Amino acid sequence: MNHDSNDSQKVKLTGEEIAKHNSRDSCWVIVHGRAYDVTEFLPEHPGGPKIILKYAGKDATEEYEPIHPPDTLDKYLDKSKHLGEVDMNTVEQEEKEEDPDEEARQERIKRMPILEQCYNLMDFEAVARQVMKKTAWAYYSSGADDEITMRENHNAFHKIWFRPRILVDVEKVDTSTTMLGTKVDIPFYVTATALGKLGNPEGEVILTRGAKKHNVIQMIPTLASCSFDEICDAAEDGQCQWLQLYVNKDRAVTKRIVEHAEKRGCKGLFITVDAPQLGRREKDMRSKFTDVGSNVQSSDSSGDSVDRSQGAARAISSFIDPSLSWKDIPWFLSITKMPIILKGVQCVEDVIRAIESGVHGVVLSNHGGRQLDFARSGIEVLAEVMPVLRERGWQDRIEIYIDGGVRRATDIIKAVCLGAKGVGIGRPFLYAMSAYGLPGVDRAMQLLKDEMEMNMRLIGCSDISQLNPTLIDTRGLSMHTAMVPHDTLGMNVYDPLIGPKEKAKL
Amino acid sequence: MNHDSNDSQKVKLTGEEIAKHNSRDSCWVIVHGRAYDVTEFLPEHPGGPKIILKYAGKDATEEYEPIHPPDTLDKYLDKSKHLGEVDMNTVEQEEKEEDPDEEARQERIKRMPILEQCYNLMDFEAVARQVMKKTAWAYYSSGADDEITMRENHNAFHKIWFRPRILVDVEKVDTSTTMLGTKVDIPFYVTATALGKLGNPEGEVILTRGAKKHNVIQMIPTLASCSFDEICDAAEDGQCQWLQLYVNKDRAVTKRIVEHAEKRGCKGLFITVDAPQLGRREKDMRSKFTDVGSNVQSSDSSGDSVDRSQGAARAISSFIDPSLSWKDIPWFLSITKMPIILKGVQCVEDVIRAIESGVHGVVLSNHGGRQLDFARSGIEVLAEVMPVLRERGWQDRIEIYIDGGVRRATDIIKAVCLGAKGVGIGRPFLYAMSAYGLPGVDRAMQLLKDEMEMNMRLIGCSDISQLNPTLIDTRGLSMHTAMVPHDTLGMNVYDPLIGPKEKAKL
Amino acid sequence: MNHDSNDSQKVKLTGEEIAKHNSRDSCWVIVHGRAYDVTEFLPEHPGGPKIILKYAGKDATEEYEPIHPPDTLDKYLDKSKHLGEVDMNTVEQEEKEEDPDEEARQERIKRMPILEQCYNLMDFEAVARQVMKKTAWAYYSSGADDEITMRENHNAFHKIWFRPRILVDVEKVDTSTTMLGTKVDIPFYVTATALGKLGNPEGEVILTRGAKKHNVIQMIPTLASCSFDEICDAAEDGQCQWLQLYVNKDRAVTKRIVEHAEKRGCKGLFITVDAPQLGRREKDMRSKFTDVGSNVQSSDSSGDSVDRSQGAARAISSFIDPSLSWKDIPWFLSITKMPIILKGVQCVEDVIRAIESGVHGVVLSNHGGRQLDFARSGIEVLAEVMPVLRERGWQDRIEIYIDGGVRRATDIIKAVCLGAKGVGIGRPFLYAMSAYGLPGVDRAMQLLKDEMEMNMRLIGCSDISQLNPTLIDTRGLSMHTAMVPHDTLGMNVYDPLIGPKEKAKL
Amino acid sequence: MNHDSNDSQKVKLTGEEIAKHNSRDSCWVIVHGRAYDVTEFLPEHPGGPKIILKYAGKDATEEYEPIHPPDTLDKYLDKSKHLGEVDMNTVEQEEKEEDPDEEARQERIKRMPILEQCYNLMDFEAVARQVMKKTAWAYYSSGADDEITMRENHNAFHKIWFRPRILVDVEKVDTSTTMLGTKVDIPFYVTATALGKLGNPEGEVILTRGAKKHNVIQMIPTLASCSFDEICDAAEDGQCQWLQLYVNKDRAVTKRIVEHAEKRGCKGLFITVDAPQLGRREKDMRSKFTDVGSNVQSSDSSGDSVDRSQGAARAISSFIDPSLSWKDIPWFLSITKMPIILKGVQCVEDVIRAIESGVHGVVLSNHGGRQLDFARSGIEVLAEVMPVLRERGWQDRIEIYIDGGVRRATDIIKAVCLGAKGVGIGRPFLYAMSAYGLPGVDRAMQLLKDEMEMNMRLIGCSDISQLNPTLIDTRGLSMHTAMVPHDTLGMNVYDPLIGPKEKAKL
Repeated sequence: MNHDSNDSQKVKLTGEEIAKHNSRDSCWVIVHGRAYDVTEFLPEHPGGPKIILKYAGKDATEEYEPIHPPDTLDKYLDKSKHLGEVDMNTVEQEEKEEDPDEEARQERIKRMPILEQCYNLMDFEAVARQVMKKTAWAYYSSGADDEITMRENHNAFHKIWFRPRILVDVEKVDTSTTMLGTKVDIPFYVTATALGKLGNPEGEVILTRGAKKHNVIQMIPTLASCSFDEICDAAEDGQCQWLQLYVNKDRAVTKRIVEHAEKRGCKGLFITVDAPQLGRREKDMRSKFTDVGSNVQSSDSSGDSVDRSQGAARAISSFIDPSLSWKDIPWFLSITKMPIILKGVQCVEDVIRAIESGVHGVVLSNHGGRQLDFARSGIEVLAEVMPVLRERGWQDRIEIYIDGGVRRATDIIKAVCLGAKGVGIGRPFLYAMSAYGLPGVDRAMQLLKDEMEMNMRLIGCSDISQLNPTLIDTRGLSMHTAMVPHDTLGMNVYDPLIGPKEKAKL
Repeated sequence: MNHDSNDSQKVKLTGEEIAKHNSRDSCWVIVHGRAYDVTEFLPEHPGGPKIILKYAGKDATEEYEPIHPPDTLDKYLDKSKHLGEVDMNTVEQEEKEEDPDEEARQERIKRMPILEQCYNLMDFEAVARQVMKKTAWAYYSSGADDEITMRENHNAFHKIWFRPRILVDVEKVDTSTTMLGTKVDIPFYVTATALGKLGNPEGEVILTRGAKKHNVIQMIPTLASCSFDEICDAAEDGQCQWLQLYVNKDRAVTKRIVEHAEKRGCKGLFITVDAPQLGRREKDMRSKFTDVGSNVQSSDSSGDSVDRSQGAARAISSFIDPSLSWKDIPWFLSITKMPIILKGVQCVEDVIRAIESGVHGVVLSNHGGRQLDFARSGIEVLAEVMPVLRERGWQDRIEIYIDGGVRRATDIIKAVCLGAKGVGIGRPFLYAMSAYGLPGVDRAMQLLKDEMEMNMRLIGCSDISQLNPTLIDTRGLSMHTAMVPHDTLGMNVYDPLIGPKEKAKL
Repeated sequence: MNHDSNDSQKVKLTGEEIAKHNSRDSCWVIVHGRAYDVTEFLPEHPGGPKIILKYAGKDATEEYEPIHPPDTLDKYLDKSKHLGEVDMNTVEQEEKEEDPDEEARQERIKRMPILEQCYNLMDFEAVARQVMKKTAWAYYSSGADDEITMRENHNAFHKIWFRPRILVDVEKVDTSTTMLGTKVDIPFYVTATALGKLGNPEGEVILTRGAKKHNVIQMIPTLASCSFDEICDAAEDGQCQWLQLYVNKDRAVTKRIVEHAEKRGCKGLFITVDAPQLGRREKDMRSKFTDVGSNVQSSDSSGDSVDRSQGAARAISSFIDPSLSWKDIPWFLSITKMPIILKGVQCVEDVIRAIESGVHGVVLSNHGGRQLDFARSGIEVLAEVMPVLRERGWQDRIEIYIDGGVRRATDIIKAVCLGAKGVGIGRPFLYAMSAYGLPGVDRAMQLLKDEMEMNMRLIGCSDISQLNPTLIDTRGLSMHTAMVPHDTLGMNVYDPLIGPKEKAKL
Repeated sequence: MNHDSNDSQKVKLTGEEIAKHNSRDSCWVIVHGRAYDVTEFLPEHPGGPKIILKYAGKDATEEYEPIHPPDTLDKYLDKSKHLGEVDMNTVEQEEKEEDPDEEARQERIKRMPILEQCYNLMDFEAVARQVMKKTAWAYYSSGADDEITMRENHNAFHKIWFRPRILVDVEKVDTSTTMLGTKVDIPFYVTATALGKLGNPEGEVILTRGAKKHNVIQMIPTLASCSFDEICDAAEDGQCQWLQLYVNKDRAVTKRIVEHAEKRGCKGLFITVDAPQLGRREKDMRSKFTDVGSNVQSSDSSGDSVDRSQGAARAISSFIDPSLSWKDIPWFLSITKMPIILKGVQCVEDVIRAIESGVHGVVLSNHGGRQLDFARSGIEVLAEVMPVLRERGWQDRIEIYIDGGVRRATDIIKAVCLGAKGVGIGRPFLYAMSAYGLPGVDRAMQLLKDEMEMNMRLIGCSDISQLNPTLIDTRGLSMHTAMVPHDTLGMNVYDPLIGPKEKAKL
């Protein structure tokens, strides 16, 4: 059969024909009702060939959908390999294997708690963990190496304690502030996170709607499941959005993206600088492995052929430019009027350099603990940065944000007391969205607002501008304490005290 | 049927009639044998409408009783809605649903340990947790947010160690001291805690009797289940009581309360300053939720309608004035001759301001960890305050108390060594009362006295006045140490040492 | 029947007669084949009347034996109440109730590990815990209050790390040293512990023999189960023993004891100064409670009648003088030529005072964590003391010992490096004795010697005199770190990393 | 029967004859098809006589093989006791006892995860623990005393956090460096570990091949299961190897070994200085005990006869010279041109002395936590050493290595940032080899390389030379924090927060 041009296709392809191309030698797949010849692309697939071969000759849409932005095939597969429309009626519906894990998950979904039972951001995570698909959960919840930085991010807030003031009139509490000139209801924004459709079929636009409702800013991710325009379109009039940017090796592509974002009304350009290479996340890798190979003894188990299919993160990020450097900053300043913020700064030296380079802000961040394990938490870096800036009188020359580990309004207050303009929150809203959709995101934001108002009162401030360093005690913040390992024998032989025993049953 | 005036009611209402008003559109309830029309009050109920609707057309006394002070209905429900007496014989006795939780609790009560098995304050808590109603336990035991401050309160004492003196004649040990001029047997007082009837049907008067027996002072709570006068009446001649005050938005009400307390002989006015809004306590909220809605899927689960019924704490505190400020202090000083103590001070700056404002004392307190999470423990704040006061020579200008986390006589000794006049103890006596009534409170206090005498001996002091800062080592106190998260993989793969194995069974 | 004089008794008493006196009104008991009328003594019994009444009219020998030194009845019960010999053939053998706990223990004894399986001191404790009687275990293993000091005692050694030297000739290692002029094989002594017969029917003489074999010193306890002379008699020629002394309210008694000890050849007088009152040990109290009352609902459960029967410790110590003070020291120096050592010193101020008072040594000790909870460990106090003494040039004016928590030769080395002359070890030898008798004690000491020789080599010292402070790193020692309580929700929702999964079973 | 000379043996020995010599009085054993009379050697056997007697009159090859280097019998058993070849057909095949532990292990081997499921070095350990023989696992995994140093070794890295730099061009990352003049791909080497055949029948040559493939250096252990020459022979042309040396009491032996190594091309001589006596490792001892004696009640259980058969470590090391000292260093410098490195230095004083003594390097090491418990980690000592050297300008006078606890590339980076030339890795490769053979070692090294490249990028360095101390935060490193023991009662009575509950099953 001959396909001269898939653009001018007359006859739809049949499932039967496609099914013949089910091997490494000739591999066709169907995505969204169209067929593609990916034989030559197999070795280049960032996610590895295995996962494609699983769908060789079949419909791959369900697996493909959440991980690939809508324009992926156009961008990465030569037009000549686009084979054209398929008559989906001729495609055999594959009977799904019974999957006891999936059945158990469906059971958990039936019994999931109702939304009102979520009283804080952790609760959404607890529910999401139960009801999300294993691979989706692994992608969202995983961090670098031993996930020590990931957990430290929230832990670090535990080292900061309050010194509240009493007898302050807090009848009226105003939690609003501004970020890069935009007025917002509360000092957090929805930070960029990839692959929203893993959690909810609608994807990132749900976050757009939640952000609108609570008047906070959404940062649009480069690696969204929805296309950039879909997310912009979902915003209402006057709603502020920012763009998170992974810089492409091809600067023309980057320029096009930036100019387009500015045209669509984005009010800030957040250039990610902590990810010259996207991290290894073993939870993610392990979840994927199980999917495609758990029952097959590897035929070639020499170390040589280390399987490069390392989870979703690596699969979607091969375009990122690891040579990006300070030299590129003037160019960015030249191509856009949007304020430019460096996202992922991790020490005071680089904050100073950022100021000197003329950018408008920094996000002290370790990428949610997903990149370098043992990177310090944003809040700890903030405590290092601010005294140095204040000494130089530079504290107002840029806006400083942090992200990572924010789960409570007290976390936000601590950051603002230390000198941050606001904080980014990512995973918690993903979990709320994954578990409950828009109502989940809505309630998550409302809970934060409720906590914020109450805690402002309890710390004795009626206004964001009153938050200042004398309200917190950060003496413990910089210590990285790891205990002396205990002696197993001693621990085991100690006979612990017990409380009063109830009477024996008669 | 016509009710012209409920004051001059001739005919009692019947259960049958009341039962008709069982909906949101017309909602009557019976409390203590009288009927009330709460239809219009429903949306204003601080505890939310749900919990009332559960009893629409029925007798709500059992649920109502412990949470509402006796004068609640008179105060908050317009007289026109007081429908008058009900012929309780006509009210259908509702057959209680079998509740497996309640049955298990009754079983636990049958087998509860006898009082002599309680050897310390923690033991009462262990028993109370088993035998109290779930909602009552949740109200007493809950704290703010992640309950970190609540637990830190006792933990903080673990960072203070003794430097005892030897070869001091301690044959006779005198643990008595004075508080605001009143001589007491031991440096603690019963601090104010709300809703005593949740734990015991008699309520706070049990604490009054216990305090009398051991010659310690009771602080009467604004939010007691018993009325203020009932608690005063329970005191014996010469027994000292203090008043804890939540300041009402209506200052006339507050003035009336203060003047009345002074008239009834109260010897101290403790104004709560750490609670412009009563805290969110999720354990409490969750316990309540389960009660009224666990099996119903919310019909409207949009985040909008965040359920405001947030546990007992919020339900009972809507009158508290969040605009209370330092400006109000002179007025308080003008309306009473009782010494005025600010309860809930949390940093040295505010202690200094308190002294300057002319009050007679402060309680360094975070409200039992029920208000602001990450507020520091009273004992830690005390260690911050005293050196500053001593430097100014101000250490004797006011009396300083702390509360929160006191469980052992060693805790009391540590506080007095640091410079406190005494400590407040709340929950432990509630638990003792809930589990064993007055004998429980009595034994709890006696245990503290026994511990106190012994530990005074062991630290080498025969008299409270000898307690001083050189007897303790507080170097670790101010550190807020949170560990570096461990590496899960490394922890799991370590093969722990084990002791000698017993011989195999033959 | 008439008993004019029990000294000149002609006819033995019969079990039948004694059995009549089985109540509070007339209470006789048999001990070691003789009858005693304890009716009047009941309320004075330090262990409470209950435990005696359990044996009213019966043979109490088995219960009495391990807790009371041999001369107890002579000392504390008036001769007129000694009723004389009993014809034991007439005493009904009580059939023991089946006790499932005891049966389980007997089963554990049958399967106990053989001695060679104990590789360190903790191992003996692990075995003893399985095979000892519950009350005996409770008495030995319990500590004050929350047992925090008891556990800290060993933990504190974990904060001291080594700075070993390499390339030192350690072919021959000599671990011998001197203590108060006596040459010993290794710098530890067997410290005084009470009630040795609880663990082994022979009691403290087993420790005497073990000490002889390994050429270390035994400190004879005042509260031994064996009499002082029995323990002296068990010593071989030239074997050095010390006397631990609780000072009696009656100084004549004390003088008699001291003079007798000197006459019998004791080479040191260790006056316990940390126990004006013997501690409350709740594990001990609870174990006793269960024994005598667990199935009886207390008839009178008012707090008033706090049961004063508070475990073995309180029962045996009522004679101790709480008025002992520095003023008594000259008198002690005047009545004996033995060197005097204060046992239980806990801060540098008191060490200085001890030196000034002319005594010959101190033991930095908190009584094995059995007295004041939150007393600091001996090793920590040592680190506080030595720099101050060295500054004054006083480091050689007395000998300084520590005890508490020593389990490894490394612990001994750390103490000697810091400046101690040696360490006392108590419980570990009791456990070894309780589990395996003399062979257990022998092996425990041999293991310590083996560890000592090896670790001296590994730290690069061939001689005790080479141990010095530069060989250890004590920077962490003085910190009393208690963690910020973790957030339960966050901890629970974290999805820990897991290792590779094995293949599913086919 | 007469055996004039085993060299000129004519007739093979029969199994039947050998079987007669099966007692302590006459004990013959077969090893690799030859018989040996070990009767007189029994009491000298470093592993104790018991284990030999188990094989008296039988074939001991399987037990003998992995623990004894090939030339052992020649070296330690007089030729006259070499009885000559055995006709193995005449030797009765012993039916192996069914061993449920071994059966379970075989079952685990069948289901072991495939190699691709190992994503980091800990994963190999997790698999090895499942599939290795118990005694082999015990020998590899055990450490000294309570294994606190062993665990601290990795833990210490957790106290060092990164201060990464952003916007550095890291497109090309070069992880290569040099060690003692040899260029290597990545700054780690395979450090010396004993008894490779316990993990894999081929032994250390597998590590040789892995090292070659990844261009890193292998250090050949004195106590290898393979002979030195076998390991040299396994190296390919130009492959660099070092020699680890335990110094023999007989210096002539040592000289022969060193000269031979130099002749065979070794490029570095690492003299172990932290093991004048090989450590007690209780896990190892316990595993051995169970093997030979668990069901026998020791007939002589007096402490006297402490069983000296203390695991593999002690068995193989009796030749090591404990008198080795600084005085020997000039002699070593005189007998070889290889650079000399002291392995096991543990404080800055000894590093200075090493430099002064003219050696070329040191390894800061505590022997993998197998020698002195509470020895500090190599990384901590490094942080102590480097500032002192830099102050003196001596940082380049020697090469400094560390080993112990390295599991992640981030650990390597931390060490190099602090000033190490590289790190040694031991156990992880043993585990990889034990579980998966060469492919395991290969993959383990590849994983480290992958991690290294990524983490260099993420820290902002493209070259090893750029790693420097400003990239890390080591403030927490020197603290040896042990927590205040928690109060058991308080911990138990706290009612932890829980997340939302799922709906009850209908």
